Amino acid sequence: MSESLTYVSEKVGMMPGTLVHVGSVFEAETKISLVDYNKDTIEENNIFSIEELIKYKETDTITWVNVEGLKNVEIIESIGQMFHIHSLVLEDILNTHQRPKFQEEDEYIYIVIKSLALQNEKLSVSYEQISFLILDNFVFTFRETSDDLFSPIYQQLKNSKGRLRSRGSDYLAYAILDVVTDMNFVLIDSLDIVIDSIEDELLTNPTSQTLVKIQQYKRELINIRRSVSPLRELLSGILRSDSTLIRIETHEYFRDIYEHVIHVSEEIDSYKDILAGLLDIYISSVSNKMNEVMKVLTVFASIFIPLTFIAGVYGMNFEYMPELKWKLAYPVLWVFFIIFSIMSFVYFKKKKWI
Amino acid sequence: MSESLTYVSEKVGMMPGTLVHVGSVFEAETKISLVDYNKDTIEENNIFSIEELIKYKETDTITWVNVEGLKNVEIIESIGQMFHIHSLVLEDILNTHQRPKFQEEDEYIYIVIKSLALQNEKLSVSYEQISFLILDNFVFTFRETSDDLFSPIYQQLKNSKGRLRSRGSDYLAYAILDVVTDMNFVLIDSLDIVIDSIEDELLTNPTSQTLVKIQQYKRELINIRRSVSPLRELLSGILRSDSTLIRIETHEYFRDIYEHVIHVSEEIDSYKDILAGLLDIYISSVSNKMNEVMKVLTVFASIFIPLTFIAGVYGMNFEYMPELKWKLAYPVLWVFFIIFSIMSFVYFKKKKWI
Amino acid sequence: MSESLTYVSEKVGMMPGTLVHVGSVFEAETKISLVDYNKDTIEENNIFSIEELIKYKETDTITWVNVEGLKNVEIIESIGQMFHIHSLVLEDILNTHQRPKFQEEDEYIYIVIKSLALQNEKLSVSYEQISFLILDNFVFTFRETSDDLFSPIYQQLKNSKGRLRSRGSDYLAYAILDVVTDMNFVLIDSLDIVIDSIEDELLTNPTSQTLVKIQQYKRELINIRRSVSPLRELLSGILRSDSTLIRIETHEYFRDIYEHVIHVSEEIDSYKDILAGLLDIYISSVSNKMNEVMKVLTVFASIFIPLTFIAGVYGMNFEYMPELKWKLAYPVLWVFFIIFSIMSFVYFKKKKWI
Amino acid sequence: MSESLTYVSEKVGMMPGTLVHVGSVFEAETKISLVDYNKDTIEENNIFSIEELIKYKETDTITWVNVEGLKNVEIIESIGQMFHIHSLVLEDILNTHQRPKFQEEDEYIYIVIKSLALQNEKLSVSYEQISFLILDNFVFTFRETSDDLFSPIYQQLKNSKGRLRSRGSDYLAYAILDVVTDMNFVLIDSLDIVIDSIEDELLTNPTSQTLVKIQQYKRELINIRRSVSPLRELLSGILRSDSTLIRIETHEYFRDIYEHVIHVSEEIDSYKDILAGLLDIYISSVSNKMNEVMKVLTVFASIFIPLTFIAGVYGMNFEYMPELKWKLAYPVLWVFFIIFSIMSFVYFKKKKWI
Amino acid sequence: MSESLTYVSEKVGMMPGTLVHVGSVFEAETKISLVDYNKDTIEENNIFSIEELIKYKETDTITWVNVEGLKNVEIIESIGQMFHIHSLVLEDILNTHQRPKFQEEDEYIYIVIKSLALQNEKLSVSYEQISFLILDNFVFTFRETSDDLFSPIYQQLKNSKGRLRSRGSDYLAYAILDVVTDMNFVLIDSLDIVIDSIEDELLTNPTSQTLVKIQQYKRELINIRRSVSPLRELLSGILRSDSTLIRIETHEYFRDIYEHVIHVSEEIDSYKDILAGLLDIYISSVSNKMNEVMKVLTVFASIFIPLTFIAGVYGMNFEYMPELKWKLAYPVLWVFFIIFSIMSFVYFKKKKWI
Repeated sequence: MSESLTYVSEKVGMMPGTLVHVGSVFEAETKISLVDYNKDTIEENNIFSIEELIKYKETDTITWVNVEGLKNVEIIESIGQMFHIHSLVLEDILNTHQRPKFQEEDEYIYIVIKSLALQNEKLSVSYEQISFLILDNFVFTFRETSDDLFSPIYQQLKNSKGRLRSRGSDYLAYAILDVVTDMNFVLIDSLDIVIDSIEDELLTNPTSQTLVKIQQYKRELINIRRSVSPLRELLSGILRSDSTLIRIETHEYFRDIYEHVIHVSEEIDSYKDILAGLLDIYISSVSNKMNEVMKVLTVFASIFIPLTFIAGVYGMNFEYMPELKWKLAYPVLWVFFIIFSIMSFVYFKKKKWI
Repeated sequence: MSESLTYVSEKVGMMPGTLVHVGSVFEAETKISLVDYNKDTIEENNIFSIEELIKYKETDTITWVNVEGLKNVEIIESIGQMFHIHSLVLEDILNTHQRPKFQEEDEYIYIVIKSLALQNEKLSVSYEQISFLILDNFVFTFRETSDDLFSPIYQQLKNSKGRLRSRGSDYLAYAILDVVTDMNFVLIDSLDIVIDSIEDELLTNPTSQTLVKIQQYKRELINIRRSVSPLRELLSGILRSDSTLIRIETHEYFRDIYEHVIHVSEEIDSYKDILAGLLDIYISSVSNKMNEVMKVLTVFASIFIPLTFIAGVYGMNFEYMPELKWKLAYPVLWVFFIIFSIMSFVYFKKKKWI
Repeated sequence: MSESLTYVSEKVGMMPGTLVHVGSVFEAETKISLVDYNKDTIEENNIFSIEELIKYKETDTITWVNVEGLKNVEIIESIGQMFHIHSLVLEDILNTHQRPKFQEEDEYIYIVIKSLALQNEKLSVSYEQISFLILDNFVFTFRETSDDLFSPIYQQLKNSKGRLRSRGSDYLAYAILDVVTDMNFVLIDSLDIVIDSIEDELLTNPTSQTLVKIQQYKRELINIRRSVSPLRELLSGILRSDSTLIRIETHEYFRDIYEHVIHVSEEIDSYKDILAGLLDIYISSVSNKMNEVMKVLTVFASIFIPLTFIAGVYGMNFEYMPELKWKLAYPVLWVFFIIFSIMSFVYFKKKKWI
Repeated sequence: MSESLTYVSEKVGMMPGTLVHVGSVFEAETKISLVDYNKDTIEENNIFSIEELIKYKETDTITWVNVEGLKNVEIIESIGQMFHIHSLVLEDILNTHQRPKFQEEDEYIYIVIKSLALQNEKLSVSYEQISFLILDNFVFTFRETSDDLFSPIYQQLKNSKGRLRSRGSDYLAYAILDVVTDMNFVLIDSLDIVIDSIEDELLTNPTSQTLVKIQQYKRELINIRRSVSPLRELLSGILRSDSTLIRIETHEYFRDIYEHVIHVSEEIDSYKDILAGLLDIYISSVSNKMNEVMKVLTVFASIFIPLTFIAGVYGMNFEYMPELKWKLAYPVLWVFFIIFSIMSFVYFKKKKWI
Repeated sequence: MSESLTYVSEKVGMMPGTLVHVGSVFEAETKISLVDYNKDTIEENNIFSIEELIKYKETDTITWVNVEGLKNVEIIESIGQMFHIHSLVLEDILNTHQRPKFQEEDEYIYIVIKSLALQNEKLSVSYEQISFLILDNFVFTFRETSDDLFSPIYQQLKNSKGRLRSRGSDYLAYAILDVVTDMNFVLIDSLDIVIDSIEDELLTNPTSQTLVKIQQYKRELINIRRSVSPLRELLSGILRSDSTLIRIETHEYFRDIYEHVIHVSEEIDSYKDILAGLLDIYISSVSNKMNEVMKVLTVFASIFIPLTFIAGVYGMNFEYMPELKWKLAYPVLWVFFIIFSIMSFVYFKKKKWI
């Protein structure tokens, strides 16, 4: 069952405002890592309670808090209280079956997207929900699992004194969003290889397994599309936004992501067309194979059935069958058998049935 | 015949303004239950005549009147008179073949939606029409049947002194709407399981019954879609509305439902694609089976027809057939028969026909 | 040939402004009936010349003039002159191949719609064009034929002193439009029954006639759709109109029709999907039947062809065939024949080919 | 190759502003006919040099210049200079592979459309490009060929003193446009007849030629659509235009054409659906025919293969076959043969295979 | 693998702002050619360092700098610094997997498009990305490869003193864009020929290779479409732009390209429909061929199987078979054999199976 189908039904019957983690990935522990930086200084930390964040609230530095693992509901709740986040937003962060969206409030911006990754060569795609809270000097990211997806950004922050360090929280958010959406390009490339291999299989040795694969990839494509296509709307929402939290000079960067997202969406759409084409090839190739089988049968039957009839005739026991007495009858008949076979063979050859 | 198809034709020829219950579910009795509450007090009641409502009109408390069973037209009529509801709205409440819609008047808001529930594992979906009238301090809900769909809200009202108790009639309406639309998630989950089981059946043992099932679910999906997709428009209507009956702080909550509805709509659309894919698999698997049958026939015929011809030849009664006298002819022929069979068998094996 | 296809080509080459009746229904005589009413009085009349209308022009009463049969072009022309109707509108009234539309002028509103009726159970749908002219105190309706479609309105006008009598010409137009569009619900119900019967036929005994029926209904559905779907646009035109001829309090009623029309359009669209599904079932069932035929052939051939070969072997006339002398050879061979048949039969049974 | 496909590639590499005739129809000579009229007078003329037009420029009369044959590029060039037409417009007039469009300049309006005509009953449609230049008192029409398409307008101008004579250049342009677009109705009617005949052929005697025809008409329909559907946009452009060259009272007339164009577009769309349906019927009827063939084969084989086996058994040469000696064996066997045949026949009859 | 699919994944993990050439075409050397002109003078040059551009910055002449080969990242970087181009734009120039787009800044306009060319008759389309920077007196073009695509413009600039020399940088940009988009017409024409040849092949001798070709062209069409259809949006962006860099009198020219682009898009869309039609023909023709094969088999089998049975009957060894003694039995049987064959033959002929 696909990730996005297990769904909210777990929460049906609960009142809105109840904070519960809804999802299938349960990290053993919630891990909070913090980077606090400005142009000149940088400080990296793992923190264990939300109270530690208070001191960063009063500084002018940009603080990035990355929460990995959503099991510990109290952490989300404390962040919500400390930064005045709406309870519905908190619920959305905890419910990992969200549709990607962009929501703009007075004091913060909430973004939720899906990070897609190909698990292995069997095209089993994993979906991870990543939530962003962008405040004036704070960026919160909430992830379901813990891996090295964000490491290029940590590198960038630590090593360089470049653009990232000298800009605001909106640029940091952009950089993270860019890393996550770039994963889609990797996915698309893998898809391309997979589809090419199916096409080869179809043309050389189509089996009913090939059909199953096509259908399976079609379903996966539908799922991918459902995660990727809302990004379009999300980013055009960011671009249209007049929130002061996203500076006008950062718009250019978000527009860059916007174009990537359109590009990926178009690729996915064209894969859908290509998969439909593969199905047509499959169906035709099944018909072609049946044609081939039928031709073999027809050629064999058309040559030997008449000959068998002739042999049957001279196997009859009538007393008065003059040919039976003829000395040359038997060899002549063999000549006839052979000529008839050759002519039939040539005829079917000419018809391209053999 | 699907619920929504029996339709308004029952009312054709009547003049507008005639109040008649049009529907297929007739409850024995109309049951009216009332909850009147504010932050501090709560009163639960069953009432038997609309006149009892008068006293609640003058208080500041929120009053929720839930009418179950629409047979008793007079009740609807009295409510209409007492609260100045337009006669067309009253007609719509009574006619249970409405398309979900949101209608905004000066003094009240009228919402009509469908509550979908899976009856049993045979994917027979039941549709119940639920109408809402949202007034300043009143919420009316009109249902066709009586079950425990609303019980979480009663629980919430009675037990807690939380958000629901301290907010207005718009928040109550939201809470009810949320409960009803959440049922769609349950339905979607069931659909997912059903479709997975059809897919398994297709790949292991497709019969013509499988095809019938696919078509049946396709029709059901069309019906579900017709009930769910207008919700999108309905909720964006609520969000765009500038009626004072829906407070600005409640908008956030309706937007939450809006996103759920989009999510469900997208799921349903993708199921349509998946069902279409299943049909393709079915058609291909029928072709595959025919292929298999044809191969068996062709292998048998191609091996034995030539051999039968040879046997027929030596069954001929010519006087001068030298082979017939040869001592070794018969065993040699058997050797030929066997070698020919084996070679043919190997050939077809190599061609993957066996 | 469908009604809407015989088309305007009859008029090609004529200059605009030429009033000619274009249509396929020619009533022997044009019949004009008139109802003049207000809250207190009502007068019903058949009139024979347009001059009789002059006296009603000066009163405050609502006058409904129903013209049945369009052969008599002069009548239309006189009405046009007397009430200052644009000549293109007059042409449209006479040309019964119009697309439904709403046209708003300073002094009048012109509406043209199609009245659909199922002729008999063979789903032959008849299309009648009905034109409306709505003036301040006048409503003109122009019909091609004469039947009792409008009788509920006559009843309503005569019998009751209700809403219809006390309102303006816009409400009368609404009432008539409502009666005509309600006919679509009746049609939709019939369609539903027809499609269910085709589905039954498909599953029990599909013939090539079934396919012809599906295609025929598909074409009819396309025609129906072409008559119904412009109604949507027509009614939203009325609702958006700021003509003083349609009072603000009547809008509510037209919106009611608008919703019915959307409902019907959606039904028709879903029928299209369902018919497409039926076609898929048909094609699959044809394949299934061929499968069945092939299996019978294959079973017969696979059992008897090898046996015939064996019989042929012992029909050979070699001098040295030791088995021929064996006493038990013949019964043993019969035993073999029977065992082989039974085993083959069991094998095919297990493969579900029998 | 379809007309619109030979295309502009002939002009690739040329600089914009180069006036060249691009097209496939080359008239021997360019013919210029002129009608100059007002309410009272009318003058008809063939002119041979553009200079003759100067005198008409100063009068108040409406002058219609119809240029037939585009080979003579200088004529177009002189008109362009004399009336200050943009060089890109002149290029468009000469390049007969334009998409229908409406272009509005300060001093003139440029319209280009396609005139479609059915060449013969083989549905070979001819496309002619007709360009319009509408000035204050001038209308230019540019055609590729010379035929009697415009004769109704000449008639109207000469004979009557009606609407056409008393109105401006915009009404003349309307009248011409009306005549050209009305040709589409004629085409549609022919299409209808052609499609009906294909459907008959499909149901009585489908051959592979029928399929070729369907595909051919499908392509032609695509071409027709490409010429007709931009008219919608073109006319709504005219209706939205606030150019003083199109008087407000003429809008009504253009709206009439607009509605015709929508009508024709919808017809063409529905033909596309119908043709797709025909293809489905074709494919099904091919399957049906194969079914029929298979049934014949199966019936013959299923009856005679077992009987042949029996005959083969009694043709064996075993010494000890007691039945061979029985006196009644032979007639009894015949009885069995006949009973078996009849029973098989009845069985297959019951199964509707015969 | 299609060009646009190898994609940005090469850049995943890099920070925005890193200038790297991403693409598959690596020219050995970057070549920069420069044309500087005004109405009176023209100077053509190859330059080797960007510093040489400084002197042209101060003149009023139009300077066109054409950069061929993108390997040398420093060149792009220097241009960026000298003309204040945003670093994201520089990245886009270097990343040759861009989607065509139009981006408008205060001091320059950035356009990126794809130049499509048919490599050979095998419909292998090559895609080259061409970027434009339009400044007040400068036009930069960036190409991946070096060929004679721009030579008509060089010719035009050198030879004539026409429009091109007397207008601004916007007109130069138009002229280049026009040359590039005109290549699409050439491509479309080639496509047309290719599709016609496939159709011929389908009707005369369809093989499974034909199917592979159809699918291959379908994929190529999807790719072409992805490069061409964003041009629509791009050009309507230019037309809507109020940048002073594109003079109002040049708009007319860009609108001309806009219409060409729409034309090409529509052609491509219709090819998609036509290819889908070809697939239908293919599938039907495969069925037709199988039908033909089946008919041959059935005719042979239906004639000879009964005859063989008869021959088998008279090959039985019963002692009491009176016919065996009849003198005329054998010739009479032959007569029967021949009459039966002829009648069967006539019957199948009448059924059009032979």
